Amino acid sequence: MPRVVALAGGVGGAKLALGLQLVVAPGDLSVVVNTGDDQEFHGLLVCPDLDTVLYTLAGLADRERGWGLAGETWAAAAQFARLGEPTWFQLGDRDLALHVHRSRRVRAGERLTTVALDVAARLGVASRILPMADEPVRTRVRTPDGWLNFQDWFVRLRHEPAVLEVALDGAEEARLTTEIEGAVVDADAIVICPSNPLVSIGPILAVPGIRGAIGESRRGGTRVAAVSPIVGGRALRGPADRMLASLGEEVSALGVARRYVGLVDVFVMDQADAALAPDVERLGMRAIVTRSVMTDDASRAALARVVLDACLS
Amino acid sequence: MPRVVALAGGVGGAKLALGLQLVVAPGDLSVVVNTGDDQEFHGLLVCPDLDTVLYTLAGLADRERGWGLAGETWAAAAQFARLGEPTWFQLGDRDLALHVHRSRRVRAGERLTTVALDVAARLGVASRILPMADEPVRTRVRTPDGWLNFQDWFVRLRHEPAVLEVALDGAEEARLTTEIEGAVVDADAIVICPSNPLVSIGPILAVPGIRGAIGESRRGGTRVAAVSPIVGGRALRGPADRMLASLGEEVSALGVARRYVGLVDVFVMDQADAALAPDVERLGMRAIVTRSVMTDDASRAALARVVLDACLS
Repeated sequence: MPRVVALAGGVGGAKLALGLQLVVAPGDLSVVVNTGDDQEFHGLLVCPDLDTVLYTLAGLADRERGWGLAGETWAAAAQFARLGEPTWFQLGDRDLALHVHRSRRVRAGERLTTVALDVAARLGVASRILPMADEPVRTRVRTPDGWLNFQDWFVRLRHEPAVLEVALDGAEEARLTTEIEGAVVDADAIVICPSNPLVSIGPILAVPGIRGAIGESRRGGTRVAAVSPIVGGRALRGPADRMLASLGEEVSALGVARRYVGLVDVFVMDQADAALAPDVERLGMRAIVTRSVMTDDASRAALARVVLDACLS
Repeated sequence: MPRVVALAGGVGGAKLALGLQLVVAPGDLSVVVNTGDDQEFHGLLVCPDLDTVLYTLAGLADRERGWGLAGETWAAAAQFARLGEPTWFQLGDRDLALHVHRSRRVRAGERLTTVALDVAARLGVASRILPMADEPVRTRVRTPDGWLNFQDWFVRLRHEPAVLEVALDGAEEARLTTEIEGAVVDADAIVICPSNPLVSIGPILAVPGIRGAIGESRRGGTRVAAVSPIVGGRALRGPADRMLASLGEEVSALGVARRYVGLVDVFVMDQADAALAPDVERLGMRAIVTRSVMTDDASRAALARVVLDACLS
């Protein structure tokens, strides 16, 4: 059975990660997750992408709301409001317990990776969920109103202000973890999930050493596939399309593919974008055209199989 | 209207504090609360006595359970259990929000007093709830099995092991706050609530300066009353009776009165202990015999009136 490494941000990435988990042997999937959108709330370290992947792979995610836990309750949030705490970033009661737990351990000196692996195991996840780095990396965006922390822009301002520039504070000081290096080098397939290429995959690829490890794996014969989060010129979810536009890049699957030149062997795009396949192949990638919109576990697993087949065939 | 200062621990003290709040003008009550039983749980500062007084004076306490908030929910606690956190000290969801809020502010350098006053105001409490000190004081008890943190003994071991010695770590380094000093010096009456004299009132009186401030107030004509938590030779609630016994003190209202010699002018005891009144008076206090068991707001207010009348007449 193939050992697979996936690179993922939040919701879109978590969907394909779940598809991959459904089709590989238990424990053979490692998911490297963006931590650039981590931020402190109520004095606690909150890791939105890490937890979206965690809750999705644990089968605990609220699929209707798109974030957080199914069946979540909000008693603590109401009390935070009464105490005058800002409440625009909503934390459910069970979610809060995780942030308290993780914050305590990280503050006590444990590596974020250690805590993430332990928490995933406790929630019954067989896959390895790996933060992209143990050191804090913080994505900020420059808007017409100035620089903003990522969650201030994404959640508080509902990602409405145009993004003119992206900064990844701390990325140069971050180090590739031994867990990620080992997983990438040992991988039989590496999959870049259909996450925002600028603020989900971008921070992961900005960690020094990750590109080198992927390159080493490719030289050993491992193929890297990326799945486009842009379908028919629009992001399936989130602001990736408007970000590409305001940053002067092409808002299409081809625009995404251009960001991955020299890194990926296979580019997976939706049937809606079939006409772009020749242009993608001219970038030096094999283009795979398939049904890429994931609406249920069956379509998640089907896309995962297409991606893995392209890497392993 | 008289300005009143009460010294209180947890449940028993909070009951009389509420009675006092019911009979004084809004804002004229200051409650100095034991923080010796504070302890960290889940990496958060938890102040059990402070919160029992807070929730009681805010009208939010769960009177049946005897601690915590009425209508509390326990989703976070279930998640803590799943994450492997110790759960013998139960924190409800709304309660947890307060601990997160307070921990963040104290960790950021705010005084515990500032946070306590602000939180009480936000929960609509007109009285001033004052932690006995801003510095940490930690009560420990020596049992046949060795020294234990207070909550480990009180909650985890259900205060079953005999207490052979009480230590108040940090008490000598604690300082009288300007808020307490001002309230005590300005008070028209000072009331020691029917809390455990050893581990609730004892830590408050161990803060350097508090006895001097009370003495200064007494020299100015203010009377100090204490209410016995021992009725008919038994503690109305908690382990005060067994503690007095294992520490070699008399388990009676008289035994409590002996601990307050030189500090109080009036000792209020239950009708059940009327026979002890002459012995109490021989200690140099005026003994007041009344119905001291508080079962509802009317009996809390009635006891408060008896205590204040004795101080102010």
